[in-house]
Amino acid sequence: MKTEHSNKFEEVTVQTEAIFKGKIISLQVDHVRLPNGEMATREIVRHPGAVCVLAVVNGRMLVVEQYRKPLGRSQVEIPAGKLDPGEDPMEAARRELEEETGYRCGELKLISSFYTSPGFADELLHLYYAEGLTAGEAHLDEDEFLDCEALTLEEAKRYMAEGRISDAKTITALYAWQAYQLTGSF
Amino acid sequence: MKTEHSNKFEEVTVQTEAIFKGKIISLQVDHVRLPNGEMATREIVRHPGAVCVLAVVNGRMLVVEQYRKPLGRSQVEIPAGKLDPGEDPMEAARRELEEETGYRCGELKLISSFYTSPGFADELLHLYYAEGLTAGEAHLDEDEFLDCEALTLEEAKRYMAEGRISDAKTITALYAWQAYQLTGSF
Repeated sequence: MKTEHSNKFEEVTVQTEAIFKGKIISLQVDHVRLPNGEMATREIVRHPGAVCVLAVVNGRMLVVEQYRKPLGRSQVEIPAGKLDPGEDPMEAARRELEEETGYRCGELKLISSFYTSPGFADELLHLYYAEGLTAGEAHLDEDEFLDCEALTLEEAKRYMAEGRISDAKTITALYAWQAYQLTGSF
Repeated sequence: MKTEHSNKFEEVTVQTEAIFKGKIISLQVDHVRLPNGEMATREIVRHPGAVCVLAVVNGRMLVVEQYRKPLGRSQVEIPAGKLDPGEDPMEAARRELEEETGYRCGELKLISSFYTSPGFADELLHLYYAEGLTAGEAHLDEDEFLDCEALTLEEAKRYMAEGRISDAKTITALYAWQAYQLTGSF
């Protein structure tokens, strides 16, 4: 992917206040100069980046149900996880898929990389497509609890209508899969 | 939309530490009891929620280019903005569309509501579809600077391949628009 970056309307950092450094995210407040010379503050969450996988077995996508503390409830999502320091995103996708579902995959194809919340966070999420999977045994992290199932496109759309699937990465994966089924490309 | 919520694998909050309260987000660390009885911490960003609009004029979707401080560069995105306290999401979508592009719309249709980063944030984003637009004048917030343009699906997909479009909501909107063009429904 050729990447073209623009700095139009750049906001120049005058000062950065470090607020918090956690296990996963950190938070800072930047004091910036706007294009019109005025000052403003920007609340910014730093995140190591993450991966997720649209993994299709016999015409069904693999999903996992897990509790999401920020939402106070469980969600059905495609397998995903954050990047370890220095980890290659494709290797991370392969690792997360196997840890959460037990399935091993051959070649992975990058569908898209996207920022989840560019207004306040730098989290970049890499979405991969995997076929040709081999079943095996899941091996979860010690603080990870989840159930795995496999859905047709119609079932997944029904989950979406019911609100059981309601996160950006899984909905993006669903639409990308539909586009692939209808047009042969993502 | 009928919403079915599950509490499977619930993590019970034992203590909440308030870390930061900003203009837009706040941050807390929850100490939780896992299903196996062990303790863990969860870093949680609270966000008021936001809206975004897939607005189509003469077969082209409206997009705005703006600087995203967390990314350190400009991005091309569909019109979007956070909810004001107590604001109806559909009214917010109408307001943001008019503020950022000058276009007024009649009926809006909810395509989907989704969590952008359910692992660490509760931001819920409502994606609307708007047609039958009437051109007018943009009126931006005083700390808002952006350019508006209108893209065909092919142009938008090229922007995506080039990395000029690279955020979850715009990519979801793109795929949803493609699904609508191909199947007549979102």
